[in-house]
Amino acid sequence: GAGPGDPELMTLKGARALSKAQLVLYDSLVHRDVLDLAHPEAKLICVGKRAGQTSTPQELIHDWIDRGTQQGLRIVRLKGGDPMVFGRAGEELAFADQIGLSWTYVPGISCGTSLAGLAGIPLTLRSVASSAWLGTATGQDGRLTSDLMHALGTSSTLVVFMGRRRLKDIAERLIHLDKSDTPIAVI
Amino acid sequence: GAGPGDPELMTLKGARALSKAQLVLYDSLVHRDVLDLAHPEAKLICVGKRAGQTSTPQELIHDWIDRGTQQGLRIVRLKGGDPMVFGRAGEELAFADQIGLSWTYVPGISCGTSLAGLAGIPLTLRSVASSAWLGTATGQDGRLTSDLMHALGTSSTLVVFMGRRRLKDIAERLIHLDKSDTPIAVI
Repeated sequence: GAGPGDPELMTLKGARALSKAQLVLYDSLVHRDVLDLAHPEAKLICVGKRAGQTSTPQELIHDWIDRGTQQGLRIVRLKGGDPMVFGRAGEELAFADQIGLSWTYVPGISCGTSLAGLAGIPLTLRSVASSAWLGTATGQDGRLTSDLMHALGTSSTLVVFMGRRRLKDIAERLIHLDKSDTPIAVI
Repeated sequence: GAGPGDPELMTLKGARALSKAQLVLYDSLVHRDVLDLAHPEAKLICVGKRAGQTSTPQELIHDWIDRGTQQGLRIVRLKGGDPMVFGRAGEELAFADQIGLSWTYVPGISCGTSLAGLAGIPLTLRSVASSAWLGTATGQDGRLTSDLMHALGTSSTLVVFMGRRRLKDIAERLIHLDKSDTPIAVI
């Protein structure tokens, strides 16, 4: 996990792994300066996806992992934020297990827990919000997820990933719930 | 934020701040080896609290911050995990603002997003759990929080801080909701 953007928010452990890597498969949300931490002879390959753009099929990423493994390379799979939080690490790790590749998870700072704080808003605050909900705005059917619909009815702080395009739907739902005074930050 | 335990999960930015600190106010959940990152002449003071133990009153921490500020010291307030996530950073930052102390927030890896992954469990996984809820088990009245009661009825992954003592209540609630096959990990 490369963290929420600032290259200095990489962990010491992540930096060490990068310095020893021979193959780095990185996402497009990873800050370019983070790649400077990689060994100068490491091969760097962008396998990133961005909302609305043509994505690298997951199979292609698996193919790179497989090829690197065949060549006996030390691989770092570098993702923005934390790979276990909306990072689809589970699918890639299942593939790694399948081909007998041993792996270690090095967590990163999730955007979900840090971006609010970096904007000056504590995620939890006594007697204001004592819990937080992290989720994506829409499911595979393109509608607001039922988890989000439930969460909107609670007093948790909600962190909605990829939510900007659905801001109107979210606001309308809050108005419907008689919670039109709910403060929202778009970060 | 010092992260979830492993001293190497401190960020590069956090390590740099510690190396320049003159006064370090740290919590008891911070790994001792993290303190080795501090400047050798820095004054290290434990202001920690642990569940069930006599706690350092928040006022005493504010007093230390105030005293360090009067002496013109560079202060690092070091907390386990991320200070903005169940860390009461909001209260201390409000105090800092009150005495005119300028501050920078250096996020840490929250235990809420990383401990599951470190135990081999992705926090989110396509078609299993597409969101996560982070919260404490009990409120100030000692009962399961209403946010948790709501969250138990959803398909989110729930991360319950300080939940071990309320495991029976949580399990009973799941059985009541006809969700007795819900897997639970105690980490």
